[in-house]
Parts: sequence; structure tokens; C-alpha cells
Amino acid sequence: MSSIRFEQNLSLKEKPDASKLEFGRTFTDHMFLLDYTEGQGWHDPRIVPYGPFTLDPAAMVFHYGQAIFEGLKAFRTKEGKVMLFRPNKNAQRLNVSNERLSIPALDEDAFVEYVKALVEVEQDWVPSTEGTSLYIRPYIFATEPCLGVRASKQYLFAIILSPVGAYYKEGIHPVKINVESEYVRAVRGGTGFAKTAGNYASSIKAQEEAKEGGYAQVLWLDGKEHKYIEEVGSMNMFFKIGGEVVTPELNGSILAGITRDSVLHLLKTWGVPVSERKISIEEIYTASLEGKLEEAFGTGTAAVISPVGQLHWNEHTMVINDGKIGELAQKIYDTITGIQNGTVPDTFGWNVTIGE
Amino acid sequence: MSSIRFEQNLSLKEKPDASKLEFGRTFTDHMFLLDYTEGQGWHDPRIVPYGPFTLDPAAMVFHYGQAIFEGLKAFRTKEGKVMLFRPNKNAQRLNVSNERLSIPALDEDAFVEYVKALVEVEQDWVPSTEGTSLYIRPYIFATEPCLGVRASKQYLFAIILSPVGAYYKEGIHPVKINVESEYVRAVRGGTGFAKTAGNYASSIKAQEEAKEGGYAQVLWLDGKEHKYIEEVGSMNMFFKIGGEVVTPELNGSILAGITRDSVLHLLKTWGVPVSERKISIEEIYTASLEGKLEEAFGTGTAAVISPVGQLHWNEHTMVINDGKIGELAQKIYDTITGIQNGTVPDTFGWNVTIGE
Repeated sequence: MSSIRFEQNLSLKEKPDASKLEFGRTFTDHMFLLDYTEGQGWHDPRIVPYGPFTLDPAAMVFHYGQAIFEGLKAFRTKEGKVMLFRPNKNAQRLNVSNERLSIPALDEDAFVEYVKALVEVEQDWVPSTEGTSLYIRPYIFATEPCLGVRASKQYLFAIILSPVGAYYKEGIHPVKINVESEYVRAVRGGTGFAKTAGNYASSIKAQEEAKEGGYAQVLWLDGKEHKYIEEVGSMNMFFKIGGEVVTPELNGSILAGITRDSVLHLLKTWGVPVSERKISIEEIYTASLEGKLEEAFGTGTAAVISPVGQLHWNEHTMVINDGKIGELAQKIYDTITGIQNGTVPDTFGWNVTIGE
Repeated sequence: MSSIRFEQNLSLKEKPDASKLEFGRTFTDHMFLLDYTEGQGWHDPRIVPYGPFTLDPAAMVFHYGQAIFEGLKAFRTKEGKVMLFRPNKNAQRLNVSNERLSIPALDEDAFVEYVKALVEVEQDWVPSTEGTSLYIRPYIFATEPCLGVRASKQYLFAIILSPVGAYYKEGIHPVKINVESEYVRAVRGGTGFAKTAGNYASSIKAQEEAKEGGYAQVLWLDGKEHKYIEEVGSMNMFFKIGGEVVTPELNGSILAGITRDSVLHLLKTWGVPVSERKISIEEIYTASLEGKLEEAFGTGTAAVISPVGQLHWNEHTMVINDGKIGELAQKIYDTITGIQNGTVPDTFGWNVTIGE
């Protein structure tokens, strides 16, 4: 932590009961901050007590939404070590988002160093119960007080940490998903491949309507033809059709998920046929009718794998694998979570151990 | 101001020289605030000294961008009266944006009352030089500290005020515009019709590239076919072709501009043929080749009218009206600014006088 300034929080909070944690509600004692000012660049990396930001009412984030984020987790192994899962991938994607949003790039090695430094300070906050982790939220937003519509000349990069309970407390239950027919998440030429605040804001309405209809999430179709599968909720989507695994290709409107990438690596290693390509909802429906739709699941940092038991598309209902988790989805889930918590050998070199 | 709490700022700033104002840089002594909490609704309207917000680092606006805004102006007449231009239209559109972003609606009469109350307190800040005004920025953003992706349960509605100089200090100069070929502003099913922060964030990159290429702004084409005209920069677009005025119809991806609406009212009153419909860039190019493209201009609150002198589309350059402002654009500009500053009769009842 050579160049990172450290200000100790003198009133530490009590650690919560890991079985009672709600996602993203409890935060640790410290946060990491880094400022950007035009001319000066990124400067003053510091770990300080977690506490409120003071922002001018004209700060550009409130008006023009230049804001991007990342999400990753720290896991505690049985031996008590704390490990991060592929943080370099988050560093790379952060800069992809930065570039699209006209936010200055951050040094990728420094990003990983900052995450490691903060997690090291807060390592007692990494829970040890099975399935739990410390969620890490790095983010950047525009702070310059100005109402002109242009890129901000000042930004804040922050990292906050939140201990999270097991995503699947009572085993993995496949969910009911509705194919969204009205709203669109993203379109080529837009910001779909960036992890920017606005993408999430625009998705909330469809998500609320899906919940009212009894669905866990929406399956997004492309914004141009309303025909091809893009994402499910805020996860990437995979299908197993007649023995082959398919996932939508990275076409400019889909987020390049890190779990998605990890799943592709695993499948290739296992010799499972897999392809990244355009997948129409019509193709999925036909496969379902022909009995070839064997599995369907979303992938993301929060759930790792979220199997889909039922897919609703207009008047059609497709029941997948009798509404149970598929064999492949289970194997992927067990392998990735195993690598993350240190019980499965990390043959890809994905883990980064804190303090090493 | 019956129910609005008022806290006087005891250290008033010096009023700036109206000829030296940069847009959105200088703010007045007070701001209006209103809180929303689930269960309690919108509450505690107050006018307080302009000063920083204190926000939890997990406040949802930083992460998922639930943020919308409005923009309008207060003008000083020669007689010294202060007038707002169609604030009820901003109130209506605010709620259209709120609905799309899953933000709770605000009472529209209350919105106008709040704007009037704040401008009344700050009326000495409304400049009197020709072309100047007091820019009013009402906005709402999510404040609940939570990292779950869903609608926030807490919001802040704020109004801040900024005195602005004349948009055209040296007369109206038509601008060079580039037809955007890569980036897309919005698509049907997205948030293009809402005035949300994310729309502006996603537009900055294209705007920067246009500026680098020597253009003032970009002309956005539709996200689906990349063929039909949508907006220019953050303004609505009008063309005069062979005596008829056309503007893109409100199709779900275009913002319903208040100046756009005012222009349509004026043209109808004047008996100028006008239609709202799909307009392809091909049609504009053909009209230009045939010598029928008589005028082209953007409309918005900041500039009122921004004439386009040159339009670049791939390898084609269309010079419009010899690069000079058109007769109709000039008449619209003179009429709207005249109504706004009280020198042209307000036959539509658009003005709302402060203190009445």
C-alpha cells in the first residue's frame, strides 16, 4: 500500500450475522477513494472511514449520468485465506465502460492494487459461512459542478464493500422468466456493452412489470429486430440445445460478463461444444417444441448461475428440464464456486490472494 | 409559499456581470428541496441556502442512475416583471420521465408552485440585458443507500437556478452538423422520450467526436434502421422542404420538446403547412439535390432556434440557405423570444408571471 494514504476509522461497526444479510445494505468500516481533475489526472488514492460524500447540487452525475461501475467478490477459503476472483477482468471492463462514457481511463494494475489494499484492510469483514462473500463495488462518477452537456472535468473513483449472504439459501431453484415484448435494454451504437448507471435505470420498469406478472426477471431481445436474445435481467444467457451450448455473441449491446467468460473457458476445457452466436427466440421456441431445449441459465457475479425453469414468450410457455436445474448448470456452478472458495483446483489462475 | 419552509441564506453572493456568464456555472443563493420516502410520499418542501448535498456512497443514483431533470427559464420584461415560459409543460414532462424511470409522480400544480416560489425568492438574480435569463433546473434522483437493482425507495427533488447570458452574443450563426453514423441516442422501447440522465451520458462520446471533426453537433438517426432523423444534439429538428415544414413525429425515442411544441403552435397559427412524420436522411438529401431544402433548424430551451447551415452525411455536404438563417427560423426565433421577454403579445397564454 505504498502510495495509498490510510485514515483509520476509530469507531468500528459490529460485524453482522452472515445468515441475515440483505444484498447491498451493510457496508464495512472503510472505503477507497481516488480523485480525477483535468490536467492533474487521477490522484490522491486513500482509504478512509466509510462516510457520506459531499457534492455540489450541480455535480454532473445528478444531471447527465456519467457513471460506471464494476462488481466482484472476495471469498474466504477454509484455510482462512481471502481471495478475489479475476479482478483484472473488472479492471479491463472498467476501462471499456470509461471509454464509452468519455471518462478518463484508470491504470488497470492500480485498479487491482486498490481493490486488494481495501480488502486487506477490511479482511475481517469477509464472511466464512458457505456461499457468503464480501461484495466489492468499484465505481466512478462525474463530480464537476456544471450544467453544460459535455464530459465532466472532475470524477471520483470509489470502492465500497458489502458482506453478502448466500445467494441460494435453500438450494438452487430455477426461475420463471418472461420474454420482454415492449421495453428494450440496449441497441448497437448505444451503451449496452458498458456497465453504466443509465443501462440499469432504464431496465427497472420492465423488471417491475415482470415481477407484477409473477416472473423473476425479463429476457431482453435485441432493440433492432426484437428477435434475438440479448441478456436475462442483468445476467448473460446460456442455452443447451441438443447437446450444444450457445450464448449470444458480444455484439455491442451485450455486457461482456466475467462469469460468462469463465463459463466459456470451463466448457471448452471440458470438451462441451459451445458457440457464441445470434440466437433468436424463435429458435429457442422451436428447440423447446422438438424436445431439444435441455438447459437454460443466466450467469452473473451475484448468483454465478441462475437456472431458468420456465420461459414465457407471448402466449407460449416453455418448461425447461422439468423446471429443475440442469446437470451442466449444476456442474458449472459447483466448479466456479469451488474455485472461488478454494475447494476446486484453480487451474486457470483466476484467483488473486489477498496479502500475497 | 404557504407550506414551503424557508431558511434565509445569510451570506448572499455578489450578482455576476451578465455579459460574462458561462452556461450553468454560477448558481443563486437558495435552492428548493423536497424529499420522497416510501410510505410517506413527497414531503418537507423547503427553500434553503444553496449548498452541498450529503449522500451515502451507496446512494442509488451513483450506481443505477435513476435520475431525471427538466430545464426552463425565467425572463425579465422591460417593465421589470419576471415571467416563466410554459412551466406546466415541464411539470407534465417531468412525470412522463418519472413514470419511465419508476420514480414516483410529483403533483404538477405543486411543481409549478415550487418553481414560482424559488424564482420569487431569487428574483433579483434574473438578469435584464437582452437575451439573458435565469435558467431553472428541476431534477430528481434516487438517494436510498442500497446496491440491489430495483427502484429506490427514497428520492430528492431539487431546483437550482443559474443566471445565463445571451445564447447568441454576436447574432445567430448557423452551425455545421454531422449525421451520426456509429452511435445511437435511443431506440423505441428505451428511454429516448424521457429526460433522464443516462440519455445525456450516452450522447457525450458522439458529441466529442463531432467536435473533433469540426462540427457543432450530431444529427441522430433512429437506432433500428439508422435511416430516420430523430434529434440534433439535444434539440428537436425541423426542416422546411418546398414550402412545407416537417419535424420527426414523437415515436417513443424522441424527447417531446417544449420549444418544439411552441413552434408547431406558431406555424399552425400562421397557416404554414407543417407535419410531424418520419423523415429519412435520404429524403433530406434528395430535397437538397433538387434545391427544395429551404431551411433546417434545431429547437430547444437553451438556444430557442439553432439554424443548421451545413449538414454532412457520409461523403455528402448539404449547404442550406447559403449557410444563412432562414426567414421562417428568424420569425420563429423573434416571436418566441419576444413572447418570453414580453415584447410580443402572449396570445397563447404561455407566460406565467412571478408574484401573480
